[in-house]
Amino acid sequence: MFESAELGHTIDKDTYRKEVPLLREALLEMQLDLLQAAKFPVIILITGVDGAGKGETVNILNEWMDPHHIQTHALSDPTDEERERPEMWRYWRVLPPKGKIGIFFRSWYSLPINEALQGSGKNSELDQHMGRINNFEKMLTDEGALILKFWLHLGKEQQRARLKKLEKDPKTRWRVTDKDWQNFKIYERFRRVAEHALRQTSTPDAPWIIIEGNDPRYRYLAVGKAILQALQTRLKNGEPRKTSVSVPPLLTKIDKLNVLKKLDMSHKLAKKEYEDELEKYQGRLNLLMRHANFKKISLVTVFEGSDAAGKGGSIRRITGALDARFYEVLPTAAPTEEELAQPYLWRFWRHMPSRGRLAIFDRSWYGRVLVERVEGFCSESDWMRAYSEINDFEEQLIRSKTVLVKFWLSISKDEQLKRFKERENTGFKRFKITPDDWRNREKWDEYENAVCDMIDRTSTEIAPWTLVEANDKNFTRIKVLKTLCKMLTEAL
Amino acid sequence: MFESAELGHTIDKDTYRKEVPLLREALLEMQLDLLQAAKFPVIILITGVDGAGKGETVNILNEWMDPHHIQTHALSDPTDEERERPEMWRYWRVLPPKGKIGIFFRSWYSLPINEALQGSGKNSELDQHMGRINNFEKMLTDEGALILKFWLHLGKEQQRARLKKLEKDPKTRWRVTDKDWQNFKIYERFRRVAEHALRQTSTPDAPWIIIEGNDPRYRYLAVGKAILQALQTRLKNGEPRKTSVSVPPLLTKIDKLNVLKKLDMSHKLAKKEYEDELEKYQGRLNLLMRHANFKKISLVTVFEGSDAAGKGGSIRRITGALDARFYEVLPTAAPTEEELAQPYLWRFWRHMPSRGRLAIFDRSWYGRVLVERVEGFCSESDWMRAYSEINDFEEQLIRSKTVLVKFWLSISKDEQLKRFKERENTGFKRFKITPDDWRNREKWDEYENAVCDMIDRTSTEIAPWTLVEANDKNFTRIKVLKTLCKMLTEAL
Repeated sequence: MFESAELGHTIDKDTYRKEVPLLREALLEMQLDLLQAAKFPVIILITGVDGAGKGETVNILNEWMDPHHIQTHALSDPTDEERERPEMWRYWRVLPPKGKIGIFFRSWYSLPINEALQGSGKNSELDQHMGRINNFEKMLTDEGALILKFWLHLGKEQQRARLKKLEKDPKTRWRVTDKDWQNFKIYERFRRVAEHALRQTSTPDAPWIIIEGNDPRYRYLAVGKAILQALQTRLKNGEPRKTSVSVPPLLTKIDKLNVLKKLDMSHKLAKKEYEDELEKYQGRLNLLMRHANFKKISLVTVFEGSDAAGKGGSIRRITGALDARFYEVLPTAAPTEEELAQPYLWRFWRHMPSRGRLAIFDRSWYGRVLVERVEGFCSESDWMRAYSEINDFEEQLIRSKTVLVKFWLSISKDEQLKRFKERENTGFKRFKITPDDWRNREKWDEYENAVCDMIDRTSTEIAPWTLVEANDKNFTRIKVLKTLCKMLTEAL
Repeated sequence: MFESAELGHTIDKDTYRKEVPLLREALLEMQLDLLQAAKFPVIILITGVDGAGKGETVNILNEWMDPHHIQTHALSDPTDEERERPEMWRYWRVLPPKGKIGIFFRSWYSLPINEALQGSGKNSELDQHMGRINNFEKMLTDEGALILKFWLHLGKEQQRARLKKLEKDPKTRWRVTDKDWQNFKIYERFRRVAEHALRQTSTPDAPWIIIEGNDPRYRYLAVGKAILQALQTRLKNGEPRKTSVSVPPLLTKIDKLNVLKKLDMSHKLAKKEYEDELEKYQGRLNLLMRHANFKKISLVTVFEGSDAAGKGGSIRRITGALDARFYEVLPTAAPTEEELAQPYLWRFWRHMPSRGRLAIFDRSWYGRVLVERVEGFCSESDWMRAYSEINDFEEQLIRSKTVLVKFWLSISKDEQLKRFKERENTGFKRFKITPDDWRNREKWDEYENAVCDMIDRTSTEIAPWTLVEANDKNFTRIKVLKTLCKMLTEAL
């Protein structure tokens, strides 16, 4: 979930100087339109990791827009007045009216997340709390409000470096407290709790927008542009009720960096080494699946990837190690009549393996947020809601002791071209290349966006994606086998 | 929530004989239309209290409709196959396809409710479970499914009588097990847990339909007509996505009985008695509000009722007993500009009293499901979602130690006419009668339906409605004061 916000996004000074005046002007104009239409309120939450620049971001927004029509609320401990009322009263009393913007620095998420951090670790109370927040936000969006929830993120090392840097400078030293360092010590736990909370509350109507907080220029531009974009979309669409989706799920235009571009595509494995490793990991996998405890769990693996990325080859290296009675390979093609008469996930539910068995999905339920999204086979609201439906689905698998391993096989555009041509020129491979493949290739960038969104929204603590640098087939196959063995070993 | 299902609804034999053939024919026709259109599946849950006739109802439905296109699932303990998969797999595998009807006798609610009954009594796990069910049902309705959730209800005495009757008859004795009697012993607890679960999961897209199970003829007709009505509405509206509301919240046409008609309107109090009681309860109320513990709670009372039902008079008998510094009377008129720029409940949230104080609402947030519904001041989906928003709101009040007392003052149509005329003829009362009052009176039946729906959907274990037989002003005022004292005494 936080993958895209740990890439080291930066914006250089020149770009920033050039873009900010344009952004400010556009924001002010939008603010005026919002005020004049006075049709809906805008509620902006600025939350996230300590040291990720929440306060500064709130300040910048007030500087960039007309502060007369922005109400900023930095709610800390409840006042006497607030303590005597229901928990949510303090937020109700300061909700922005139609036409205005309310910025909440510390929001209704702060308290429950803190409680979960200090609490027993049972997540049913956190879930109960998140359920109530979902009801509250649903009421707000049903009433027309535009809710933008920003989570400013820092990776662990980024947070350490940032706190140290702030401490070093006499001018900013006051901002780092003992409590910040105490929080830093429980970073992993905080991250897990936060991710759980975000996953529960990232709804199609009010999705989370996660932004890397390390570089101030990137952070400001990303937040500012997201606000602008969401407001423009909503103002253009008129009647707020009819546009269930108000925010584009991912911001791709701030800089050129994304999780796929950050992969090191030069990984290679020589033939000799490959053969040794293949034998080693196939043997290990075979043993793992004969382990007594494997009878108590199920294993599901998902293969997604660009056309010609080597999904089939990798799958055969897995099945090659196994007894055919214990696995099933499930290619995902266009849905049958029977499947079309059912909810989208039905075709996958029906193939969930029983204990002691492995199901390998060659393409999967992610089709909805990839090909169906890009090709327009389903509506925007269908694929937007699919993220949370898929997260729910995978959570159910994991709760019932299924080990879920998801691979994205990534190849470069050049490598794909090479492989397409090779397929066309090799008799027995010719069936593997179709006009569809060439058409998909033309939409390379759109697919890339969809993949990044998919990873951001569905790579969770409990069901992470494994990205495989797949330009070299040997490397790909070994990484897949190795990952599978590793995750299985942990589970057994 | 169960008020309307404990009234002793019955249908006589003649009516039943007349109505059933017509209903069957209509149901069969609808079933054919459903099949031919094949646009959405219908999912019917038959759940409820033991002995309320769940099994018989399932049988009747299969008899009345074409069983070829109905799949009935009486899922008991999970099979080996099911146990090895995620909990919901057993339901996924038997979901009806588009155009067909699936009846679930024991559904996804059975297990969590049983667990909560046997468990520690903490409700966070039940809430977590209900949250997951809400996600599941939301996915189904987003995919177009029509979900009809029936809860067949019996009051405690009804259940006892029904179990005894079944036991007496040799032909039905086998149906009463030891477990049924064990369950009967924890009836109160079961009712509380069930109500909690139903409240959490009665969503605008898939609201619960609660039906009294005591009289088989009433039960069959009520279930059958609800199915027919929901199917007709959905088939007529075409595109399922666009009609968020698929089921009318209450069925009024099965018989003439409703909670208001069941009230004994002959209650009276003579002047002498009234004066004694008034002094007694005003004194008691005054003492209660000076109680040391009153500083730790808040008190909110809601007065709703027909025009001229005596709300104002009752309120004055309360305030007459109190120190003006500690209460506030809040008349609810048309919303101001400022209030219109906010979510509907905002205007009430802002007046929530602090500890040690009383707020009296003369009309309230229930306006949305009464006057706004009947007069069309808001859309159907707005007032449909208001029931759960109000339940959430009131739950928050109660969680933060607010005592909430809700009165519905009920007068007969004749009594209202008498009072209207009296007001017109009395100089100082003339301001109290407006053309609006006469117009509202013309919609008496529609208001009555709205009131019954309101009571069914918002009279909860934690925030019950008190219905006051208000034809006699003396009786009304004393009942109000007495109830207030009683609920306050319990809370202190």
